[in-house]
Amino acid sequence: MNNYKYLKNINSPDDVKKLNNEQLNELCCELRDEIITTTAVNGGHVASNLGCVELTVALHKMFNSPEDQIVWDVGHQCYSHKLLTGRYKKFSTLRKKGGITGFTNPEESEHDVFYSGHSSTSISAAYGLAKAKKIKGEKGYVIAVIGDGSMTGGEAYEGLNNAYADSDNLIIVINDNQMSISKNGSSLAANLAKIRSTKGYYRSKMRFEKVLVHIPLIGQWLRRKLMKYKYALKGVLYHSTFFEDLGYAYLGPVDGHSLHRLEDIFEIAKLRGQATIVHVNTIKGKGYHPAEANPTLYHGVGSFDKFTGKVPPSKMNFSKAFSEAICSFAEKDKRICAVTAAMPSGTGLEEFSSRFADRYFDVGIAEQHAVTFSSGLAKNGMIPVFAVYSTFLQRAYDQIIHDVSLQKLKVIFAIDRAGFVGDDGQTHQGVFDIPMLISIPHIKIFAPASYEELNHMMYRAIYKENCPVAIRYPRGGEYKLSENVTAEDSDYSLYFKSDKKKKLVVTFGRIFANAYKAVETLNAAGEEISLLKLNTIKPISEKAVNYAKQFQEIHFYEESMRAGGIGEHFSALLEASGFDGEFKLTAVDEEFVEPASVDEQLAMFGLDINSMKRDIENSGENKA
Amino acid sequence: MNNYKYLKNINSPDDVKKLNNEQLNELCCELRDEIITTTAVNGGHVASNLGCVELTVALHKMFNSPEDQIVWDVGHQCYSHKLLTGRYKKFSTLRKKGGITGFTNPEESEHDVFYSGHSSTSISAAYGLAKAKKIKGEKGYVIAVIGDGSMTGGEAYEGLNNAYADSDNLIIVINDNQMSISKNGSSLAANLAKIRSTKGYYRSKMRFEKVLVHIPLIGQWLRRKLMKYKYALKGVLYHSTFFEDLGYAYLGPVDGHSLHRLEDIFEIAKLRGQATIVHVNTIKGKGYHPAEANPTLYHGVGSFDKFTGKVPPSKMNFSKAFSEAICSFAEKDKRICAVTAAMPSGTGLEEFSSRFADRYFDVGIAEQHAVTFSSGLAKNGMIPVFAVYSTFLQRAYDQIIHDVSLQKLKVIFAIDRAGFVGDDGQTHQGVFDIPMLISIPHIKIFAPASYEELNHMMYRAIYKENCPVAIRYPRGGEYKLSENVTAEDSDYSLYFKSDKKKKLVVTFGRIFANAYKAVETLNAAGEEISLLKLNTIKPISEKAVNYAKQFQEIHFYEESMRAGGIGEHFSALLEASGFDGEFKLTAVDEEFVEPASVDEQLAMFGLDINSMKRDIENSGENKA
Repeated sequence: MNNYKYLKNINSPDDVKKLNNEQLNELCCELRDEIITTTAVNGGHVASNLGCVELTVALHKMFNSPEDQIVWDVGHQCYSHKLLTGRYKKFSTLRKKGGITGFTNPEESEHDVFYSGHSSTSISAAYGLAKAKKIKGEKGYVIAVIGDGSMTGGEAYEGLNNAYADSDNLIIVINDNQMSISKNGSSLAANLAKIRSTKGYYRSKMRFEKVLVHIPLIGQWLRRKLMKYKYALKGVLYHSTFFEDLGYAYLGPVDGHSLHRLEDIFEIAKLRGQATIVHVNTIKGKGYHPAEANPTLYHGVGSFDKFTGKVPPSKMNFSKAFSEAICSFAEKDKRICAVTAAMPSGTGLEEFSSRFADRYFDVGIAEQHAVTFSSGLAKNGMIPVFAVYSTFLQRAYDQIIHDVSLQKLKVIFAIDRAGFVGDDGQTHQGVFDIPMLISIPHIKIFAPASYEELNHMMYRAIYKENCPVAIRYPRGGEYKLSENVTAEDSDYSLYFKSDKKKKLVVTFGRIFANAYKAVETLNAAGEEISLLKLNTIKPISEKAVNYAKQFQEIHFYEESMRAGGIGEHFSALLEASGFDGEFKLTAVDEEFVEPASVDEQLAMFGLDINSMKRDIENSGENKA
Repeated sequence: MNNYKYLKNINSPDDVKKLNNEQLNELCCELRDEIITTTAVNGGHVASNLGCVELTVALHKMFNSPEDQIVWDVGHQCYSHKLLTGRYKKFSTLRKKGGITGFTNPEESEHDVFYSGHSSTSISAAYGLAKAKKIKGEKGYVIAVIGDGSMTGGEAYEGLNNAYADSDNLIIVINDNQMSISKNGSSLAANLAKIRSTKGYYRSKMRFEKVLVHIPLIGQWLRRKLMKYKYALKGVLYHSTFFEDLGYAYLGPVDGHSLHRLEDIFEIAKLRGQATIVHVNTIKGKGYHPAEANPTLYHGVGSFDKFTGKVPPSKMNFSKAFSEAICSFAEKDKRICAVTAAMPSGTGLEEFSSRFADRYFDVGIAEQHAVTFSSGLAKNGMIPVFAVYSTFLQRAYDQIIHDVSLQKLKVIFAIDRAGFVGDDGQTHQGVFDIPMLISIPHIKIFAPASYEELNHMMYRAIYKENCPVAIRYPRGGEYKLSENVTAEDSDYSLYFKSDKKKKLVVTFGRIFANAYKAVETLNAAGEEISLLKLNTIKPISEKAVNYAKQFQEIHFYEESMRAGGIGEHFSALLEASGFDGEFKLTAVDEEFVEPASVDEQLAMFGLDINSMKRDIENSGENKA
């Protein structure tokens, strides 16, 4: 915590309102410095947060949170908001276990109205909040702040399409940082770009209003009056047929780094008396040159050097291993396509996009469309690979059933960030993909424990399987495996085979390495524990079940939700096979996973080496 | 099968092309007669199919399926298409077990490119198909046919937003039957209505082209040439800024019941050389007065009297019971809101909509938005009840996790059509909601077996619970229960309690009635079988597990998917509790449920009385 002149005295949005514009501009500098200083150490979303510093200050000056409710779409731009709403002193704990979370979180503050993390929900949420206010006769505006990227998600449009009528307390701020343009094929983005070019027109009108304001005493009043009536005429001053066709008053575009222009436009928005869209142009990374120059790198970043802006090169990880695998297959096989929902960098598709541009599709933040589009590609003979984070695939659950599985089309899901993802929010943990997919017919799920296995499984999905395949792998790198462990191409693998058939450990994916070390240590101390690693987790190999059922005691470890997971399914298969030993399942119970480091999270749920060792070792004694 | 003059000779779209327009108009009459005759007996989608008879004939005349690929959104308008593509002779089996299915189905015909049933997928699928054609250098257009209702779904917009560029082989037909207008708050619908009013302008231009065509020999050539260049100028003749802002050529609106106008406009569309939207105005139920007069009733209907149009009054069912329950609570409690995604009639919300209009929200075919919007309502103090079919709730999986469960907001999901739904398609069976919800923290799931229990559970959800609640109930009516069975308010209920603790049957929901009868009969014949009915299926009562674990043999019946279901979860809880008896689970395995009557479907999966009886009775012998 630095001892900033203004920031240190801001305990709530009321304190923002006490400052004049010159002071607020200094406050903006302080906010930027604090954001850069903290993220340089803790990592986080840098570019998006630097881009909306003035926007946040202007919102808190012109509106009265929490009576006026601000809903931040995705929430990866809420650092200034957190700093202005009483969380400055704790801000150094950003993204740490028990600290300030990286997204909006109602448990932290009454000013965080809605949880967020996934995109395109803000308009729907804001409309619900606004409607409830109307029904109850409560005062206050509801403001949704949504980026142009999030506007490519279908739910944003569902919300826009529905919220237009009878919502004079609803303001939608489009934070247009031009990130979706040319990055993905988005006609809305192209349309926003067209609107932006009308900036000159807007400016001249704003100038006219500025003149009015400067008429002493009467100016402000006159301007309000004039506006009240003038702006009631649809599209007189500011015009966007697209949004107006959708039933909204449209204001903008306005320079999102000019406090007084933002204040002006929000004042106008409050007077419109109908659902209003305010189009704000911002620059991602604004004020920090390294982030402005490379906003994609600085979108979400680990620690970096604050002064040079140098980001340490990222280590080898599963996303890179996936990148190498898909590129090597695509080079030889022209049927292979890659699809991403606006995450080419995170999912490791950048190299593919430059080498195989005609078979690369960034469809926007539109997972539903990505899946159905992939089905269309598959139906006409291509082999689409949809690379997606586990948590975002949740958006396309119905499409996986309806457009992929029902049609038995070979779409390959490369599910990145499966399992714990560390310091990102509760919203981002990859713990639902297994229960999501387990009941869907025809789909196979592979869980590699190493890069080499990922490569094998990609090959198998492309050339050996004739069904939809999901390959799920974790965030970060592979865990170092013993030299005795080789990459496997089979549905399951056995280690430490013992004739005793007393204790068996079963697991899959990243935490196999932990299980291996736990078992290895215990066996070195005289135990005879066997270890079964599942490579194909759906369907479960009958042979694996038949092997397991011979044991007296089975410990199953799963880095995923317990209910509806592989462990329960395995247990049911064992039960049906006549197994009559003990079965102990360790997994995530009925709760959301708090941000922390991955190692901390594994320990929190008993999936680290020490917990496993204790657990396996003591089980016999406990029973005795 | 009637012996129609033209229809009987249509074995493929080639035969359509042999007829002149006068004959085609007669063919349209025959198609209508066949559709009405068959649905009067079998039930089905009447209004939507009658509305696009000419559209279908014109498409098959002007395009060459299957080289040109037609993707029908939802597919509830594909009867004419089926009749023109070799399925006339089998059409009387429509929606029967083993018969012609009510939606498009690639297993039936190469002319059915894509499975359908759920809305708003056609543009994404068509874009994938079109893109694959381009990559492979294959000829042919891809045509998506999508209704104005389906256009309110976010995926349609995700597709529109992404498909506009580089898709000169893509044509999107908007079949605008004005069903979404005023039915739900949709600004797109309002916008379409505005466009429709420009009809006169369009007509005058069409007339100009008709004149050209009639210049002998040269006319057709001249028209093509003229069009090729003229239409390349954006918006010269036909103009819709909304769709053009999204990057599309826009043609229309055109009278969707005029074959020659449809043919003209498709010819123009083929020449545009860019992704094109063709806006077609149709009338739901066209040509059959009862359906035109009441398109909602005739949207999906059971059998009816072909000559009078009389539809038998629907019997008491769970949707009506839900309707009565929610209205009685809403009358006393002004916090209660009802939300539907364009299904007010199917979900039983019509009475609510007229009695409590200010708390009733039809948000369009937009389940994602419906859920997040409900969260917004809940956050500001309302008690929203989202009434939705099980199969359509799949669309909102992520929103249930991210916007409801994570925030612990009390949104009540009234899940209708849970379990088998009979003669609707594979796409509509309600067999995924349990595995979908089981792993989501904080949600409770109730499964009433009777109307009275549904009422109890609504009360409990509204006044006793402080978390999200799902109440799942089946399509159709309650099964008659023994007089010894009273509606229960507890988490579970016990029947035929026996001290012997040999066999226990466990089940929930509708099929409890079957289990009861099976057990009753067997017990009357001297067995001593106990029966456990789960009323709360998530979380499972610990007491219920402790009771069950005393038995030697447990039979669990579940009208849902096996993997990731309640049965497997119950089995895992038993296992963890030290249960060492036999556990047998009967549920739906790794397959989609084929259309048939509900009774047939229950029998197909061993969930009817006789199967249960055999199963429970013989289990001991098999083991011995």
